[in-house]
Amino acid sequence: MKNISFGNVKIDGFWGRRTEINRTATLDTVYNRFKDTGRFDAVACNWREGMPNKPHIFWDSDIAKWIEAAAYSIRYTPDSELERKIDETVDLIAANQTEDGYFNSYYLSVEPENRFTQRDNHELYCAGHLTEAAIAYYEATGKDKFLKVMCKYIDLIERIFKDEDSAAFCTPGHEEIELALVRLYDCTGEKRYLELSRHFIEQRGRCEKDLNCRNWCGSDYDQSEVPVREQKDAHGHSVRAAYLYCGMADIAARTGDKSLFDACDTIFDNIINKRMYITGGIGSSSHGEAFADDYVLPNDVAYSETCASIALALFARRMSAICPDSKYADAAERAIYNSVLAGVSLDGHAFFYVNPLEINIDRHNVRKKFYESRENLLTERIEVFGCSCCPPNLARFVSSIGDFLYTIDENTLYIHHYMESEAEFEGIKVLQQTRYPCEGGVRITVSGMKGKTVAVRIPGWTKYVSLNGEKLDARVEKGYAYIDITKDEQLLDFWFEMKARLVASNPLIDGNEGRAALCRGPVVYCAESVLNDNIKLNNVILDRNLSAGLIFNEEVGTYEAKVKGFVDKPCDELYFDLDCAETEEKEIRMLPYYGYANHGESDMLVWFRVTDK
Amino acid sequence: MKNISFGNVKIDGFWGRRTEINRTATLDTVYNRFKDTGRFDAVACNWREGMPNKPHIFWDSDIAKWIEAAAYSIRYTPDSELERKIDETVDLIAANQTEDGYFNSYYLSVEPENRFTQRDNHELYCAGHLTEAAIAYYEATGKDKFLKVMCKYIDLIERIFKDEDSAAFCTPGHEEIELALVRLYDCTGEKRYLELSRHFIEQRGRCEKDLNCRNWCGSDYDQSEVPVREQKDAHGHSVRAAYLYCGMADIAARTGDKSLFDACDTIFDNIINKRMYITGGIGSSSHGEAFADDYVLPNDVAYSETCASIALALFARRMSAICPDSKYADAAERAIYNSVLAGVSLDGHAFFYVNPLEINIDRHNVRKKFYESRENLLTERIEVFGCSCCPPNLARFVSSIGDFLYTIDENTLYIHHYMESEAEFEGIKVLQQTRYPCEGGVRITVSGMKGKTVAVRIPGWTKYVSLNGEKLDARVEKGYAYIDITKDEQLLDFWFEMKARLVASNPLIDGNEGRAALCRGPVVYCAESVLNDNIKLNNVILDRNLSAGLIFNEEVGTYEAKVKGFVDKPCDELYFDLDCAETEEKEIRMLPYYGYANHGESDMLVWFRVTDK
Repeated sequence: MKNISFGNVKIDGFWGRRTEINRTATLDTVYNRFKDTGRFDAVACNWREGMPNKPHIFWDSDIAKWIEAAAYSIRYTPDSELERKIDETVDLIAANQTEDGYFNSYYLSVEPENRFTQRDNHELYCAGHLTEAAIAYYEATGKDKFLKVMCKYIDLIERIFKDEDSAAFCTPGHEEIELALVRLYDCTGEKRYLELSRHFIEQRGRCEKDLNCRNWCGSDYDQSEVPVREQKDAHGHSVRAAYLYCGMADIAARTGDKSLFDACDTIFDNIINKRMYITGGIGSSSHGEAFADDYVLPNDVAYSETCASIALALFARRMSAICPDSKYADAAERAIYNSVLAGVSLDGHAFFYVNPLEINIDRHNVRKKFYESRENLLTERIEVFGCSCCPPNLARFVSSIGDFLYTIDENTLYIHHYMESEAEFEGIKVLQQTRYPCEGGVRITVSGMKGKTVAVRIPGWTKYVSLNGEKLDARVEKGYAYIDITKDEQLLDFWFEMKARLVASNPLIDGNEGRAALCRGPVVYCAESVLNDNIKLNNVILDRNLSAGLIFNEEVGTYEAKVKGFVDKPCDELYFDLDCAETEEKEIRMLPYYGYANHGESDMLVWFRVTDK
Repeated sequence: MKNISFGNVKIDGFWGRRTEINRTATLDTVYNRFKDTGRFDAVACNWREGMPNKPHIFWDSDIAKWIEAAAYSIRYTPDSELERKIDETVDLIAANQTEDGYFNSYYLSVEPENRFTQRDNHELYCAGHLTEAAIAYYEATGKDKFLKVMCKYIDLIERIFKDEDSAAFCTPGHEEIELALVRLYDCTGEKRYLELSRHFIEQRGRCEKDLNCRNWCGSDYDQSEVPVREQKDAHGHSVRAAYLYCGMADIAARTGDKSLFDACDTIFDNIINKRMYITGGIGSSSHGEAFADDYVLPNDVAYSETCASIALALFARRMSAICPDSKYADAAERAIYNSVLAGVSLDGHAFFYVNPLEINIDRHNVRKKFYESRENLLTERIEVFGCSCCPPNLARFVSSIGDFLYTIDENTLYIHHYMESEAEFEGIKVLQQTRYPCEGGVRITVSGMKGKTVAVRIPGWTKYVSLNGEKLDARVEKGYAYIDITKDEQLLDFWFEMKARLVASNPLIDGNEGRAALCRGPVVYCAESVLNDNIKLNNVILDRNLSAGLIFNEEVGTYEAKVKGFVDKPCDELYFDLDCAETEEKEIRMLPYYGYANHGESDMLVWFRVTDK
């Protein structure tokens, strides 16, 4: 099965607006902050001891992701100024690439003698992101200077790591290059790149040299404790992990390696059934930015890095392209509309790295003051972080969101996601007219598919589906409805019932007992105290007999909800008879989770107490 | 008003059993561990650098409290072996007292040149406890050697701190000597001791020298930031604080100082209305073993030191003796039957220093593993701590529990607490026949009170009171029923309705929202997972329509309760429609809180989810 690139899909509507904000606000903000902090200048490789802005080991990846995002943007909206910035950077990279092909601004400037000796130092990770950027820029503009630079560098990596095995380690401490190499193979048709990716994946967990390079968190931190097929759950640093799984899925897709796909699927099931927030956040542990054990999903100390949710969506997208099972796109959708989008402010200028499901400022202050906690709390998004991987990752993700919609094989077009859009590829045209995620109606017009089949994902959250005004009556397999196309241009008017609903969580999750989250379609809702008369949110009990008043909120781009709740009445006593405990009714205003923290510092809550049955 | 000493009150029943366990188990255990760790040998003052068991600044207070406990025990049960141990220790103390009267085993051994220079080093605190021990031993045996040693030492302290003002500080960094000096005044009739106590209290917060001795936590940590009458809430180290309040109340009682009493009362109200666990635990903060802000009463990280609850009970007892308001004895009772008693195992051999209201072993392990928490968790009591103030404090407290029952003034006998007992003092005899705290019936027989009044506390937890079989019909003021005594020997057959009940807490307490605690009479209940099929206790919902089956539990000395609950059903899904969430009925076995952690390592919970109204 083949994935249809965003380059064939013109997005409008909800995502069109996000893409436009991304283009006009996010790209500039990220560029400017990276410029201020010396990240772009670092590629000149002329930093020396005593100078400001000492390059960091991951800076190449930061600017690479920005270049990738800018390239995606250029594809739909030519921008000579963006091109100039990229060309300028590419020229510097090319000028400083060593004769044998090496390029890493940190090592070339700071530790030239130590290249390929420190497994945990993001060297191959940076190479991977630079490769993705080079491909994106080539595909957007046809300019191949950067691509050639990266091919030369990858050729060096192949020689050192595969042919000679002469580096101090065998596989990257921070995975990413695996998926980039497959992409380079797709772009160039050069099979050696696919083989190098497979080499890194197959060597993982088998190489003695890697064990000698153990990092501070142990070898399960970077998924190197056993070969990948023996890994049965998602563990360790969640971004590294999910990028590895992307690479594994890519190899499985290109080679038909069933055991590798099965390994991916086992891990995927572990994530979605035991280690994922309702927002699609993964990696709940702040210790090592890692997956925690099954059902360990605390809300206020949630780590749930933005990049990790992006990586989960990328992993799920790859799995959808191998095996059409709606669990993949459901998970991608959960991440995309919640923890990914929460990573960027509504105006596109500021970012969250960590995405908790509860902000309780008083509790945080109590922990710091009275319990010596060293937790940090960020209640508002900021423009740049010391480790600023998320902002450019968001930028490239949003600008290529169209990647998620379609896969095709010989006979079938799979429609995985719903966005107002027009697509054209391989003689097929697909028009989606929809107010998704505001409404569950999607009018799909397909041309050029006569005699073939369209498979439409039925979202996991819907209870009723109609097609062309009648209850859906089609073959449904693993969450996809298979529709035979009989006309040159066929209208599929889908309606996925999208009711506000209360969702409970597994009783093994500590802290969610007796609680529920308000959801509508793919969107998880939260309440902010600042929008609710500064009430204490844990004093709110939502009425289980939900009737949500929906009001379109221009700022967030979808509906906010007003729901009936009850609030514990203030009282003077410290302890008193339960029978005397009183509540009063109060309408609670809830916003999509992704829209929180755009209204000043505030408490925020996703999981609410609810009334009994 | 005058407090009746435990020496006039022979205790039986529930507390008779606890006193007997204290005598036969606790006294020996504490002595042996203090002997093992060198605490008793330290009074020989011959430790020198390089030797084992370096004396600690608070060791004198540890052995002093043990001597005090042993002396109380001797008063009812003569024990020549105990006397020998005390005499041996007293002889060493006397032999090492310096010519000018000084005695402190730490300073004499370790820093002889530094006496009275380090405000935070417990020097006057140790002197206070030694003084209390000397008085107790004198009152128990008539032997006055120790008392004379301490009078001489106190005379030195008076000269240095009051007459000469020549120490490096003005008032103790750890209060306690204030109340001990009043006791010494009561014992000897020497007014100088009362004046010295008053001097320490009045100087507090006024002395520049003290400010220069600020300790690591700032001057509000040891209640020195402003003069005591300006302190409006309970703050800082909770044991220091409550001992200071005891001293303030003692001075107010002996001098009629209304403003000092009012200061105590303001602080007392702050404690019981905003800063006290339902168990009577105080000092919720582990940072500085301190009071936290109003309503900061987290359950699993509760500090709630055993000594702090003892000190609260001692403070409340003193307030009861000044102003008969049942809020004082209610608070004392709350502490005594819950957080104090929880401090010692049912067999009397092991102790808790910290008394949380929730044990959640999984959550604790998750915090350590995934969130870099450095919290400690003690799930079982131990025999001795590095800082082992609580075990001997419990020993002296339990052996003098009879102190709490009565106060008298010219016309009125106040009965504050209910314990099976016989008392005789000043021509009066009081017999209490009761199964309290198992049952609310108390048959009080009073002799020698004809023409006077008996004031009987109506416990705050009761809803119905009868006297001699009829609904109570007497003047009730501030929680005391005033009964005129018309006979030489009069029977007052009180019945305080004692139903199991569910108690809610102020909605401002983070973590207790929508929860309730099972209580019966003064006893707070908890459940342990180990006694309930190892269920996850936060999956339990107690039925608000409570019907508790009560079964006498010999081991804990009162009833355990079987109550109807519902348990969240296990399920496979991570997230699912709230309507699909199911529970199943389950009988939950609950024990008195003080009886927890006697059945192996276990989760434990006080505050349970409850069904709706």
